[in-house]
Parts: sequence; C-alpha cells; structure tokens
Amino acid sequence: MKSIVQRTEVALAAYLPSAESPPETLHDAMRYATLGGGKRVRALLCHAAGELVGAAPSLLDAAASAIEMIHAYSLVHDDLPAMDNDLLRRGQPTVHVRYGEAMAILVGDALQAQAFAVIADAPASATQRVALMQELAKASSSLGLVGGQAIDLASVGSILPRDQLERMHRMKTGALLRAAVFMGAHCGPEPLTSDMLAALDEYQRSVGLAFQVVDDILDVTMDAATLGKTPGKDAQDHKPTYVSLLGLEESRELARQLGERAHAALAPLGAAAAHLDALVDMVVHRVH
Amino acid sequence: MKSIVQRTEVALAAYLPSAESPPETLHDAMRYATLGGGKRVRALLCHAAGELVGAAPSLLDAAASAIEMIHAYSLVHDDLPAMDNDLLRRGQPTVHVRYGEAMAILVGDALQAQAFAVIADAPASATQRVALMQELAKASSSLGLVGGQAIDLASVGSILPRDQLERMHRMKTGALLRAAVFMGAHCGPEPLTSDMLAALDEYQRSVGLAFQVVDDILDVTMDAATLGKTPGKDAQDHKPTYVSLLGLEESRELARQLGERAHAALAPLGAAAAHLDALVDMVVHRVH
Repeated sequence: MKSIVQRTEVALAAYLPSAESPPETLHDAMRYATLGGGKRVRALLCHAAGELVGAAPSLLDAAASAIEMIHAYSLVHDDLPAMDNDLLRRGQPTVHVRYGEAMAILVGDALQAQAFAVIADAPASATQRVALMQELAKASSSLGLVGGQAIDLASVGSILPRDQLERMHRMKTGALLRAAVFMGAHCGPEPLTSDMLAALDEYQRSVGLAFQVVDDILDVTMDAATLGKTPGKDAQDHKPTYVSLLGLEESRELARQLGERAHAALAPLGAAAAHLDALVDMVVHRVH
Repeated sequence: MKSIVQRTEVALAAYLPSAESPPETLHDAMRYATLGGGKRVRALLCHAAGELVGAAPSLLDAAASAIEMIHAYSLVHDDLPAMDNDLLRRGQPTVHVRYGEAMAILVGDALQAQAFAVIADAPASATQRVALMQELAKASSSLGLVGGQAIDLASVGSILPRDQLERMHRMKTGALLRAAVFMGAHCGPEPLTSDMLAALDEYQRSVGLAFQVVDDILDVTMDAATLGKTPGKDAQDHKPTYVSLLGLEESRELARQLGERAHAALAPLGAAAAHLDALVDMVVHRVH
C-alpha cells in the first residue's frame, strides 16, 4: 500500500500543471492543495479494485489522480470561511489561509476541471474513458458530494434521524469512495460481470459508511497533531454525527460490523481481492 | 437564432436536476443561476458550428447545455464577495445575494460537475464524447477560464501591456468561446478537415477577442438596466480593460476590425457557415 501511495504522489505531481507555468500562483496553490499528504484512501481503493480485474497500473494512476483531485478540491472548498471555516488541513494551513479566499475558490474550480482533463486524456479506450467520466461526474455532482455538502451545511444545529444522516454521508463521502472502487474496476480490460458488480457494490457501501463512522469517532477522540486537522469541529459547529446520535461505544460497534460486512462481500472474489480486503481494516482501524 | 436560444433553454431545463428532487435548495439555486436569461452566445456558436458540419441538433443541445453550465458556474463564482463581489447579474440578484455565499460556492461546483455529466451521457459515440470532454475540460482548466480569472484578479490596479491583456482574455472568456465553436464542430459525423479546423480557429480567435473588447466598451457606455449587471465595475475595481488601454474610439475600431477578420475567416466555408457569419455581427453590435 505504501508503494501505491508513493506512485499516486508521483502521478499527481505529473498530472498537475507545473508551478513554473503561468498562472504560477494558481498552479503552486493547486499543488499545495493536492500533494504531500493525505491518506490516499481513494487512490488505494481504485488501485485495489483495478488489481482485482487486471487493469493496467498506468491507467489506474490516471483514474486515481483524477479522484484525488476531486477530493482535494472538495476539501479546499469545504474549508472556506463561508463553509466550515477550517484553518488546518493535513497539519498545514488551509489553502485560503495561505493563498487567500479568492485563490482558494479558483484552486478548487481548477482542480475539478483538471480531474476531468486527466480522464479525457487517460491511456484507455474511448469507451473506458466515457465509463470513468460517468462515474466521476456522477460522484462529483449535486446528487453526490456537492449535494451531500449542501445537506451537511443545512443540517447544522439539527438532529438528523439515522437514515438521513446515512444518506447525507453516502453523498458527501460515500459517492467518491464508491467512484474510486468502480472506476478502478472499469479500468480492467473486460466489462464487469453482474456478480462482481454486486460484490463491489456491497463492499463500497460498507466501507464508505465505515469510513464516515470512524471519521466521527476520531473527531472526538483524537488530538489535532494526530488528525492533522482541527478536532471537535463537528460538535463545535453543532453538526450531527454518529457519535452524537449513537454514542461512542455504539459507533465503534457499528464500524466493526460494517468492516465485517465489507470482508464478507469480498469472499466470493477470492485471492485477487486481497488488497481490497486489507483496505477494510485500514479504514476501520485508522487513527487519523 | 431566437429558436436556438429557446431550445437551449428547454435543453438546460431538462439537463439540470429538478428543483423538486433533494437537495431542493441546491437544485433550485442551480436552476436560478443557469436558466431564464443570458445571451447564450456560447450555445449559439456551438449550434452554428454544428450546423456547418451537419451535426444532430439533439447532440448540439447536450454540448451547448454543458458549455452554458460551465459559463453559468464561472459567473456565480466570479460574482462571489471574495472575487468581484457583484450584486446584480442578468438584472437579478446574484446567487450569493439570494442564496448565501456557501450555497453559491456549491452551486458553481455542482454546475461544473453537471456539465461533465451531460457530456458523459451525450447521445454520441464514445469517441465523440471523449473529444467533447477534452475541449470542455481544457477550456475550464487553469490554462483556460480559471487561469484567466486568476490573472484578472492579480492584475487589479495594474496596467497590463496589450499582449498580456489579450492573453488574459483569451483564457478568461476566449477559451470557452473557442470550446463552443470546436465542440459544435466535433458533434459532426466526420472528423474535421485541416482546412476547416484552420478556418474555425481563425474565426474563434477573432470573435473571442471582439467579444471581450465589446464587453469593455459596454461596461463604460451602458447603464445597469440595459446591461443587467453593474456597469463601471472594471474602472471602479481598477481592472485593466481595452478602453482604459486604447481609449473608447480605438477600442470600437478594434472590435470592427476583429469582426471583419472573423467574416473573412469564414469565406472559404461557403453558405453552410451562414449562422457563424451572422453571429459575428451579433457579437460586435450587441448592446448588452
């Protein structure tokens, strides 16, 4: 996994415009927002799903880079003063703190466009590129991560019932995690069988939700140095979380159960799913 | 042309998520930002270029809608308080005035994703969809409109030499006008000949620049009611413009010359370019 994280960093550095090409400040800020940190969970999921279907690593690099660019842009915009007003991300000042608010808006906008540019030029057949674009665009849309963020903002100060909390997270973080899995699988040389599709769908649903539940747990149990971002923000912002809804112990139990469901979903896929399998534990047992 | 504007409105209304589907406020705001106004110059260019090559109108609707969504998103973000801080657009309160700043950021983000979703699902071959996506992503990138906006913001209060002013506008407004022409042409059943490509390139360069020069002229000569946005903003914001650089009369002469160059570029293409030809005069002689 460490080697996938490293090659994702190399791929991203190559797919982002050089900080020496104009407009230099914008490109420098795009690189600052994207490179040098992050768990790269989405890139890992994409590569692991691609491995399952025998996809070419260079194509997986392109798909993973596009997904990580979308993720990076969403963080830059979520951190803006008008949104979550976060000052710290990956242990560093957020983009708007370092480059100003106007530049942070443009950085996010340009990263989103760059993600689609990477897919458009990806080393794959036109049919594959269209499939990748469909997944990425849907996940990034108002029915995916942007819609989830809109619901999240609207829910500040309210107590969401569990099904609505789950729906919000399926959009806000789940949609892009789902895209990571399915885009990896679309990178394979053959169309997906319906059995594999069903298994991957069950897998991504459980892993995606587990990821969010663990996020909520870490927000109340970890310090800023470990998290790399300001902890306790959700409670401070009166945002509904799994911990506020279920309590800490029940949230931990939920994360454990979701992890088991994800493992079980992979069982029919055999040894080729080993990395997808390992990622479940990484998501459930992570400490930041 | 009026019928193209009308069918673009219908296509956009269909390609945007319904305001009745959740998250309702986001979808309502996306429709507010995109529908019911605007000159639709980009849609007209796309359809006119498509007509030249015998493209299917339904495919041109998809391409034109995607381009207009990108244009609408860029206006929503440019109008934000951290950017140009505009209160009026198409004679109506800007999105952030009406829906708040956080929502305006999300509206822009979601419109960009929606534009790529429309292309991904467009009624065309995978090869055509990839060509459309490549044009749209490049035009929307840090080397296109977002890069132009970054240079524009950085240039406030400075006097840009004419070549740099031109470069900024080629990115900020020219890139998407160019994409409109080439995307329309990519919608045709045959690959473009090099002669046609050269003619369209000369055409889009002249029309794109003329569009911006006229914009600068209108900003100092028209009132808010005619423009539908706050006039005199550029001078007030100390932004470099053609009028501040060349004066009003020389700017008018430049627009006229660019219009002639655009007409001349179309001459070898014959009668099929009639609508592209008519658009030159619409761009040069428009009053808002």
